[in-house]
Amino acid sequence: MVGVALIGSGRMGSFHGETLARRLPGVRLVAVADPAPGAAEALIRAVGGVAAAYPGGVQAGADPHVDRAAAYEDVELVWADPRVDAVVVAAPARFHADLAVAAARAGKHVFCEKPMALTLEDADRVIDAARAAGVLLRVGFNRRFAPDWAAARRLIDDGQVGTPRLLRSLTRDPGGFDPARIPAGTIFNETLIHDFDTLRFLNPGAEAVEVHAVADALVEPEWRDRGLLDTAVVTVRFSNGAIGTAEACFEASYGYDVRGEVLGDGGMATMGDGRRTSLTFSGANGRLVETARGDQELFADAYIAELASFTTAVATRTAEARTGADGEDGHDAGREERRAADREDGHGAGREERRAADREDGHGAGREERHPAGREERRAAGGGVGNAGFAAVGEDARAALAVALAAAASVRTGKAVEVAK
Amino acid sequence: MVGVALIGSGRMGSFHGETLARRLPGVRLVAVADPAPGAAEALIRAVGGVAAAYPGGVQAGADPHVDRAAAYEDVELVWADPRVDAVVVAAPARFHADLAVAAARAGKHVFCEKPMALTLEDADRVIDAARAAGVLLRVGFNRRFAPDWAAARRLIDDGQVGTPRLLRSLTRDPGGFDPARIPAGTIFNETLIHDFDTLRFLNPGAEAVEVHAVADALVEPEWRDRGLLDTAVVTVRFSNGAIGTAEACFEASYGYDVRGEVLGDGGMATMGDGRRTSLTFSGANGRLVETARGDQELFADAYIAELASFTTAVATRTAEARTGADGEDGHDAGREERRAADREDGHGAGREERRAADREDGHGAGREERHPAGREERRAAGGGVGNAGFAAVGEDARAALAVALAAAASVRTGKAVEVAK
Amino acid sequence: MVGVALIGSGRMGSFHGETLARRLPGVRLVAVADPAPGAAEALIRAVGGVAAAYPGGVQAGADPHVDRAAAYEDVELVWADPRVDAVVVAAPARFHADLAVAAARAGKHVFCEKPMALTLEDADRVIDAARAAGVLLRVGFNRRFAPDWAAARRLIDDGQVGTPRLLRSLTRDPGGFDPARIPAGTIFNETLIHDFDTLRFLNPGAEAVEVHAVADALVEPEWRDRGLLDTAVVTVRFSNGAIGTAEACFEASYGYDVRGEVLGDGGMATMGDGRRTSLTFSGANGRLVETARGDQELFADAYIAELASFTTAVATRTAEARTGADGEDGHDAGREERRAADREDGHGAGREERRAADREDGHGAGREERHPAGREERRAAGGGVGNAGFAAVGEDARAALAVALAAAASVRTGKAVEVAK
Amino acid sequence: MVGVALIGSGRMGSFHGETLARRLPGVRLVAVADPAPGAAEALIRAVGGVAAAYPGGVQAGADPHVDRAAAYEDVELVWADPRVDAVVVAAPARFHADLAVAAARAGKHVFCEKPMALTLEDADRVIDAARAAGVLLRVGFNRRFAPDWAAARRLIDDGQVGTPRLLRSLTRDPGGFDPARIPAGTIFNETLIHDFDTLRFLNPGAEAVEVHAVADALVEPEWRDRGLLDTAVVTVRFSNGAIGTAEACFEASYGYDVRGEVLGDGGMATMGDGRRTSLTFSGANGRLVETARGDQELFADAYIAELASFTTAVATRTAEARTGADGEDGHDAGREERRAADREDGHGAGREERRAADREDGHGAGREERHPAGREERRAAGGGVGNAGFAAVGEDARAALAVALAAAASVRTGKAVEVAK
Repeated sequence: MVGVALIGSGRMGSFHGETLARRLPGVRLVAVADPAPGAAEALIRAVGGVAAAYPGGVQAGADPHVDRAAAYEDVELVWADPRVDAVVVAAPARFHADLAVAAARAGKHVFCEKPMALTLEDADRVIDAARAAGVLLRVGFNRRFAPDWAAARRLIDDGQVGTPRLLRSLTRDPGGFDPARIPAGTIFNETLIHDFDTLRFLNPGAEAVEVHAVADALVEPEWRDRGLLDTAVVTVRFSNGAIGTAEACFEASYGYDVRGEVLGDGGMATMGDGRRTSLTFSGANGRLVETARGDQELFADAYIAELASFTTAVATRTAEARTGADGEDGHDAGREERRAADREDGHGAGREERRAADREDGHGAGREERHPAGREERRAAGGGVGNAGFAAVGEDARAALAVALAAAASVRTGKAVEVAK
Repeated sequence: MVGVALIGSGRMGSFHGETLARRLPGVRLVAVADPAPGAAEALIRAVGGVAAAYPGGVQAGADPHVDRAAAYEDVELVWADPRVDAVVVAAPARFHADLAVAAARAGKHVFCEKPMALTLEDADRVIDAARAAGVLLRVGFNRRFAPDWAAARRLIDDGQVGTPRLLRSLTRDPGGFDPARIPAGTIFNETLIHDFDTLRFLNPGAEAVEVHAVADALVEPEWRDRGLLDTAVVTVRFSNGAIGTAEACFEASYGYDVRGEVLGDGGMATMGDGRRTSLTFSGANGRLVETARGDQELFADAYIAELASFTTAVATRTAEARTGADGEDGHDAGREERRAADREDGHGAGREERRAADREDGHGAGREERHPAGREERRAAGGGVGNAGFAAVGEDARAALAVALAAAASVRTGKAVEVAK
Repeated sequence: MVGVALIGSGRMGSFHGETLARRLPGVRLVAVADPAPGAAEALIRAVGGVAAAYPGGVQAGADPHVDRAAAYEDVELVWADPRVDAVVVAAPARFHADLAVAAARAGKHVFCEKPMALTLEDADRVIDAARAAGVLLRVGFNRRFAPDWAAARRLIDDGQVGTPRLLRSLTRDPGGFDPARIPAGTIFNETLIHDFDTLRFLNPGAEAVEVHAVADALVEPEWRDRGLLDTAVVTVRFSNGAIGTAEACFEASYGYDVRGEVLGDGGMATMGDGRRTSLTFSGANGRLVETARGDQELFADAYIAELASFTTAVATRTAEARTGADGEDGHDAGREERRAADREDGHGAGREERRAADREDGHGAGREERHPAGREERRAAGGGVGNAGFAAVGEDARAALAVALAAAASVRTGKAVEVAK
Repeated sequence: MVGVALIGSGRMGSFHGETLARRLPGVRLVAVADPAPGAAEALIRAVGGVAAAYPGGVQAGADPHVDRAAAYEDVELVWADPRVDAVVVAAPARFHADLAVAAARAGKHVFCEKPMALTLEDADRVIDAARAAGVLLRVGFNRRFAPDWAAARRLIDDGQVGTPRLLRSLTRDPGGFDPARIPAGTIFNETLIHDFDTLRFLNPGAEAVEVHAVADALVEPEWRDRGLLDTAVVTVRFSNGAIGTAEACFEASYGYDVRGEVLGDGGMATMGDGRRTSLTFSGANGRLVETARGDQELFADAYIAELASFTTAVATRTAEARTGADGEDGHDAGREERRAADREDGHGAGREERRAADREDGHGAGREERHPAGREERRAAGGGVGNAGFAAVGEDARAALAVALAAAASVRTGKAVEVAK
């Protein structure tokens, strides 16, 4: 059983809290920390609150996964809590780096929401601390765990896409934001950082070299003078010559929209269709498809899978530590975990997995067989185990941040800007 | 906490076992019954087996949801086990009715895999037993919990489709079946029974009146003389004049394919796109989309949601029983549970829910808020709570069976056959 | 130059008139016949009427293709007109057979709108007359010339679909019809006859053996007692075991909808997406695609291609006649013409053609090359030349009629009905 | 009858030659000019060559549209030919401006393939010459006549898209080009100039202000040092704040790919699906759609429509000239012609047209009606008449060129570059 503490009980924190409390076998939410009085306790109640309708009525700890969860206002108590094997950092972005460093120093494995840090110095501090402590350091780049993006990466790894030439990633939020609450740089640090990571994810082995950005306040033009940037297009030149475009807007009338594309000499992979379901309605106005309206709707599976992958890696790591197995470095957790995942379910990720699944499926109509194991195993982990090797680690987060910082600098200077090493 | 026993540890039993053991908060898998020696125990180990990699090593009961789960070879022990509030019947079809009757008599709520029975007499026995015992009786018609089918039904209930005129439902398995193991009638009783239920689900309030079926052994023609039917088209005339077509084939080279369509005077809803992910690959041969290869891949969410809905209903029912609230009848569980679900999450299903979700999503980029509750709640239950009212109960299962029996009779006689009341 | 007379100046006649007058190189509209006073003349003016805006103002015969076109009220004058090589019969259905017979006897090649006849006896009379006269006899089954249907047939001929098992064809009109003007049998004779032909087209070499039909007045229920049938589902069993479903409804709120599907042991071809253009609009209500609203919108290219194919065949036939080449039989015009078409453009139809086209396209960006010829040639003929071999001849029309008659009989008797030979 | 001379008989010239010779009622191809000995004559034969199979055998002038067509090696003869009302310039790009100027001076209306010129000075010379001569000046930006792009523009004009914020246009050629034959600047002047025009077309009333471009030789890297640019991404900032991205690559393994997108505050329009037909094949590898392989396949209708629109405008203009009607200025031909088109078919473009079409379509099943006129009229003109107002005139071509020049300068300097006025 892996004990996890959640730090931050806001929008993403609440989602992660539910995932930790209920959706992951072998995981226990042992603590929630939030400086706002009552916030941590309220979250714990919320994620265990379905107990209200159960036999026996409302009762703290009715759900075995969240009984004994501690509510802390002081995050220091998390570091001191011996039941905490790992932390999920979902506090506001400006606190991420310090929290991650402190967690690592306390020997806790770290899953940090993006951005991991707001400066390269801070990013380095986090990476160094994790390395020194020998803990895992994962960052919440959810696209990597979305089924279509992960499948695209497998096509790339299989060589079908070939050498990437043109890449594209875009993020559009459904709007309704409060301009007064958007810190400067948000569109680069918090929104497009997903797209910068995605471009790297789709161009493995290459690094961003130079960035040019155009950004403006087109959704809320009257806030332009106060520095709001709500719409941006960023061109990224990579070390292998490939050219990427990252694009973001804080408002799309049709909902939440995330798409990706990579064109290589072998072909093109296209991801993200934004449909709510496969239902189509044809009526007097034509053919209508409902569109997804929020990130937690579109990426629910990816959000769960990234934590499933993280906690599985923590469990593997901890088990190995106890048996004297050779520890792995924080920055190559992906490879190691993939190997572990392969051991667990008895066969490799990707194509092998699918072929095996096909054999299983082939048994067909109306029969009952015994012990499927492998595939359901993976599904229980949100589909993530097969993608474990794709998880973003500290180095990835640093690289995406470097692009974001260059993009912001490009807007300030009106020039193309080299990406810092 | 709802205690559930699983009866049958085959292909679907294993999937349901994992769902009960790991995927549903507030649910505990307390027993598995299977007459094959060692089968029940093996399933329990399989669903708890991820513990192997956890601190402490392999240990029975490492997962709090499955500790203390009993492995029974004799199903009588299930009826006697006081920890068992409800059973999931996933044994071979010919045992369904007897098991469901016995479970009801023992006071256990019943979720029965389709078909609930193979004769109308048996179906009546099951319904009567559930009614007499005052237990819930649900049947595993998964399409009702698939997001696109459920959304189609909401469109119908909202009046957008209008009065249905033409309906269609089809099921194609990926092939690879063993003709020797297909009992006569399988294509009607086990495959098309899904489609017959779907046609009714998409034409609420109407009943099938007359059926004409054409069927043949086109996949395995050399088995035709031994009575195999692997391909069938069934025309169903409904009491409101609507005409439905149900179509099945045991082999589609491209995988598992389930689709539905309803045309009313207001418009047409179309369901089922069979894509594995939203990834598209464009290469030298054109544009390629991977197709789903099995039912547990395409309907995983629906399989989970139907059990989430069932166990939530059990929890509600039990809670009300303890507080003296008025019991509901097995055959209108849907409405009652929907009301319960609405109470739980504080607002109604369907459109209201979506509008509320939209408001939530509207908060947008980069901010952290507190306490999402409702929506995540629903997601934790596999998206099923909102669809609870659509669950198939005993009467639905009986009606679908009546169509299946008429279809089989139509093939035998070469004539259109009236559907028995 | 092929001289063509148009018989009938109604809705389809007007479209065909424009095609003959303007859209086909090497074709001249030399006469229009319609018993309604002034109708033929009005059509001739309409198709030449764009001259109104040209230098010189309104002038009969401004367009070289339609100068000298004769307007006849008495169709006998068509038979006597030596400039008429071929006729296009677009009069009301009940006159088709007699007109086609008379045309053949006058030595005119015949393109007859569907249905070619309303009884098998009449169909035989037409076929016999054409055979005796040695004239071509084509029937207007437009799907055969729609690009997706023709491509499906190529896949079938290439063996990729394999042996058909399940087939489907549906036609839905956009509604707005006048129930008082619908003769009994229209849904079978005039609408579904397209689908019956399509099922045969997608199952080459097999013949319909038995038919079961369900039909009703669901769009205009108050006309049911007067014999209106506006909605129908027909199951067709074929000689090779394949089972087809043809479905029609006179009203779809979203427009004109024609789709087809064939599942074989090799795979499935799906045709007909009903989109007006490739434009997608994503707005507050979701993602919207405009749907086609009428047959002349959805099948304009197919309507043109079928006449292009016919007139090319007439030209070929006539040329061969003059050179003493061996005449072909009316009922195998398809094969002969395909050969002629292949000779013309120097390479075969189907895959070869596409491969050749690919090579041509490969020349790429920004360059100017000389004399593409072949591909444009084919496009000029409306894409039809490559499909010439798929054109429906008299025997095809008779076979489709036999299914339609069986379907009507099935509705009358409530039983499955054998298809007449 | 409008007499048109074609200048240049290469790849596009051949296509336009066929269109002029065969596909446009009221148009006569009266001359072809090409300096290569025999080239003009060969083209004339090719477009009339279908006569080969006609009665009477091969015969110059068998097709009434191309009899008497003159083959010139010396383009001066075109200027002197009184039968030539208008010219279509399809010579290599470097000759466009001089040819257009000479044509205008000779009083011929001009349709010039893109790019109209290679320098702004030349562009001004062309515009001035056309204005001085009072002739029409159109440029071949085909997207404006593609059905989905034109429909997108109507959505924009209707206000449904709202104020554009983000725009995108991309062009990918199918590859196979000869690097040695690509002049420097081709990707900007000949390929992306389409996309620059498209961005303007989708953002009506705004002008490009600043451009940043990244470009490289990624398809043929060994030609990089010789100045080849085969892959480029260009960011364009518009006067209304909108940000556009134009992207091109000379090789896509899956064929010819042109797409567009515009996001405004009201919604998003997406154009270009690249499918060859609506056929889908589902087989062992998944679901496959054929992709278009060349521009003349994907844009055939648009190529025809742009010439239909041009020649109709010429006819209108000439007719008005003769009646003393007020001449229009070359640069606002669009508006004028749209008005003319509206007069011609009796009702306005866009929504009205569609509503009217819907009424027509509503007549429905099985009936024959008289004289549809309007809609077929428009289709005969390749769908273009309704879009006539969207045609690109000289000012548009100059504006697109200014962006192309700025993009090339941006690549040279590595900086963002202001777009010249």
